[in-house]
Amino acid sequence: MSLNPKRTVAELKELRALTGDENGAQRVAWTDTWLKAREWFASKLTGLAVEHHYDAAGNNWVTLPGKSEKALLIGGHLDSVPNGGWLDGALNVLAALEVLRRINQEFQGRPPVTIRLIDWADEEGTRFGRSLLGSSAFAGTATIAADRVRTDHDGTPLEDALRRCGVEIDRFPEAAREQKNAGAYIELHIEQGPVLERMGLPLSVVLGTKGVERHAITFHGQEAHSGSTPMNARHDALAACAKLALEIRPIAGKHSDAVCTMGSVKTFPGIVTAVVGRCEATLDQRDLDPAVLAAMFREAREASERFAAEERCTVEWSRIWQIEPIAFHPKMLDLCDEAIREVVGASHRMPSGPLHDAAEVSRAGIPTVMMFVQSLGGISHNKIEDTREGHLELAVRAFDRLASKAIAFLSEASL
Amino acid sequence: MSLNPKRTVAELKELRALTGDENGAQRVAWTDTWLKAREWFASKLTGLAVEHHYDAAGNNWVTLPGKSEKALLIGGHLDSVPNGGWLDGALNVLAALEVLRRINQEFQGRPPVTIRLIDWADEEGTRFGRSLLGSSAFAGTATIAADRVRTDHDGTPLEDALRRCGVEIDRFPEAAREQKNAGAYIELHIEQGPVLERMGLPLSVVLGTKGVERHAITFHGQEAHSGSTPMNARHDALAACAKLALEIRPIAGKHSDAVCTMGSVKTFPGIVTAVVGRCEATLDQRDLDPAVLAAMFREAREASERFAAEERCTVEWSRIWQIEPIAFHPKMLDLCDEAIREVVGASHRMPSGPLHDAAEVSRAGIPTVMMFVQSLGGISHNKIEDTREGHLELAVRAFDRLASKAIAFLSEASL
Repeated sequence: MSLNPKRTVAELKELRALTGDENGAQRVAWTDTWLKAREWFASKLTGLAVEHHYDAAGNNWVTLPGKSEKALLIGGHLDSVPNGGWLDGALNVLAALEVLRRINQEFQGRPPVTIRLIDWADEEGTRFGRSLLGSSAFAGTATIAADRVRTDHDGTPLEDALRRCGVEIDRFPEAAREQKNAGAYIELHIEQGPVLERMGLPLSVVLGTKGVERHAITFHGQEAHSGSTPMNARHDALAACAKLALEIRPIAGKHSDAVCTMGSVKTFPGIVTAVVGRCEATLDQRDLDPAVLAAMFREAREASERFAAEERCTVEWSRIWQIEPIAFHPKMLDLCDEAIREVVGASHRMPSGPLHDAAEVSRAGIPTVMMFVQSLGGISHNKIEDTREGHLELAVRAFDRLASKAIAFLSEASL
Repeated sequence: MSLNPKRTVAELKELRALTGDENGAQRVAWTDTWLKAREWFASKLTGLAVEHHYDAAGNNWVTLPGKSEKALLIGGHLDSVPNGGWLDGALNVLAALEVLRRINQEFQGRPPVTIRLIDWADEEGTRFGRSLLGSSAFAGTATIAADRVRTDHDGTPLEDALRRCGVEIDRFPEAAREQKNAGAYIELHIEQGPVLERMGLPLSVVLGTKGVERHAITFHGQEAHSGSTPMNARHDALAACAKLALEIRPIAGKHSDAVCTMGSVKTFPGIVTAVVGRCEATLDQRDLDPAVLAAMFREAREASERFAAEERCTVEWSRIWQIEPIAFHPKMLDLCDEAIREVVGASHRMPSGPLHDAAEVSRAGIPTVMMFVQSLGGISHNKIEDTREGHLELAVRAFDRLASKAIAFLSEASL
C-alpha cells in the first residue's frame, strides 16, 4: 500500500542534519542533542492515533492499539556514539515509523494486533559505559546498584544525568511492566560488518547475538633498563602479552563465526628506555555457541599462563563483562527469511557480533528476530558509516513484510 | 694514606637525606632541589685550595692546580631522575671528591698534574628529554637549535629554566673551552644492570658505551568492530606490532651483548570493542659494535615491513634519536683493569648499555675510561636502587688507584 521507503531515507537525512555535525552523529544518550532527536521524532507522530509515553527507564513507547492487546514490538534507538554514523539505531526507529504508518493506513487505525514502536534509551552506553541500559530495564535485567555509581568523563553521575531527563533510577525496574502483552519483537539494523558486502547480499536474517566474554588481562614482569639488562635476564611483560595477542587468532580460527580481539594494550612504565614491567590488555571473545565461547575463554586463559611462565612473568585476569549467547526465535527466523527472499530473492543467516537491544528483549522470553542490511566497508560507529540508499529501501520493504508476517503469526497465536 | 671510603658512603647518605623523599632522590636538573644539592656540595670544598666555577652550560668545575697544566678530569653528576636512587651520578661526584681530598693531602696541594672534578649539568635529561646536556656542550656536540624549543611538563621552556639557574643557552658552546689541557677522564658509576651481581664480581672495566638506534614505529591497519568483523577480514595493527615485539629478541640474540627493547606500545582507538587500527611502538637497540647495530636496525625494519604486509597493514619508522658506539681508550682500559685487580683480585670488561657523560668526553678525543660497581638486582632509576656498602668502599679504593695510575700516565705523557 502506501509504504514509502524513500521517506525513511529522507527522514534519516533530516535527522542527520538536525543532530549531526562535521564529525558525525552526536545523539549521545542523556544529552540535549539526544533530547532534540526525540522531540523531532515525536513531531513525526502528528496525525497518527497513537498513545505515546516514556517508561520508567526512559524508553520511548508509541502504541497503536489493535483488535487484540497482543502486541508486536518494533524497536530501535535514536541514541548514537559520539561522532557516530547516520544509520546505527536511527534506521530501526525510522523504518519502524514507516511500517507503523503503513499498518495504520492499511487497517484504518485498527490493526489485528497492537503495534508498539520503541525507541530504547541509551543502547550505546557511551557516556556511562553501560550499553543496553533501557532495554535491560525492560527485560528485568537492569543492574541499578552497579550502574547508579557510574560517572561520565566530567564526573557527572549517571543518576543526575537521568534525572535531568526525567528518569529516576530507583524506578527503573518499573519499565518491565511494558512487557505486558508483548507477543513478538522485530528489529532492523545495519550489519556494522563486512560479511554481506563480501557475499554481495543486501539483507540477512540474524540468528542471534553472540555471547561475549570480556576480560582485562595484566601481565606482571620486571621493569628494567633497556641498555643494561641482558636479553636473557629480562622479565618482559610485553613479550608475554604479544604472544597472547597472536595466539587468540588460532583460538578463534577453529570456529567459523568466532572472534577474539585484543583491542587495548598499555605498557608501564611505557618509556623507550625501559623493559616493560607491566602490560595491561583487554580481550573480547564472541560466539553464538556457549560451548565454543567457554572453550575459547579457557584456551586463552591457559595460553596466557603458559606465556607468562615462559617469560618469567605472572598474569592476572579480571572479567570486565560477559553476556551469554542469545539465539533468536526459530519461527521468527523463518518469517524473516521468507520476508527477505520475497523482496530480494536470496537470504542468508548469520549471527550478530555486536549486541543489540533485541538480545535483551529475547532474554525476556519474547519471540524475537533481527534483520541486517549491508554496511559499506563494514564500517560503523564512525561518520563514514554508510549503506546504499537502494539497499536501505529494500530493507524497509523487507522489514515491512516481516512485520506483516509477525502480525499474522500473532493473530494465529491469539486465536 | 688518608682516603676514607666510609666518608663517601656517609656523604651519599647525607645527600640523600637532604634531597630525597619517601619516593627517592629528587635532584632533577634545573630545579631547586638540584641547586640545593650543588650548594651542599660546594660547602664540602671548604678548606681545599681549589678554584670553583660553573661553565657556560652549567657544569660545575672544581680545579686543583698541579705542577703541570695537563689535567685529569674526574666526573659525575648530582642530578637524578625523579624518584631516583641514591647512587646514580652522586656516587661519582662524591667518590671524586674523596679522591681529590686524598690527592690534595698526599701532594700537599700541588699534585704532578692538575686535577679537575666536574659535576655535569643535566645528565639525565628527564625534565626536557635531552640527556647529557652539559657534557655535550663541553664536547662541542650540543644541539642548541633543537634543544632550546624543548619544554617541560608544565610548558616551561628549557631556555627559561636554564636562565633561572644562571645559564644562557646561547652561550652554551663556550663550555667547550673547558677542554683545554684535558689529558684524561675517569668516571665511576653503578652498573645499573644485573651482570656483575650474576658474575659475583664487585667491579668491572667499562669498554665503552653502546651505540643506540631509537625509533618510533607506527603500524597502520583498519579500526573495526570487534564483534562484527570476521577474523579473516581484519587489518590488525596490533598483530603486526606483536610479531615485531617478539622478533626483536632473536635479532638481538645473534650478538652476545646486543639488546633490543620495545618499551612502549600504544593502541588506537584502544578500546575493548575495536580491532586496533593504529599501533605505535618504540624500539631501542644497542650494541658496542657499529656493524652489529646497523645490522639489527636493518633486520628489525625489514621484519616490520614483512609483518605489516602479512597483516595487510602499513608501517612507518621515524628516528627518535641515535648515537654511535663509543669505545673507551685502550690504555685507560688497561689502567682501570689493573686498578680493579689490585683492589679486589678479579676484573671483567663489559660495555655499558646506558649512556654516560663519559661518552661525550670520549667523543671530544680525551682518553677516557669508566669503572662500574655492582648494582643489587640490576635496579636503577628507582628508590630501591642499591649497592652493598662494602662494594661502594671497594669502588672508591679502586677508583682512587685508577686516579693515581692516570696521574702517572699523564705525567709520563707530559715529560
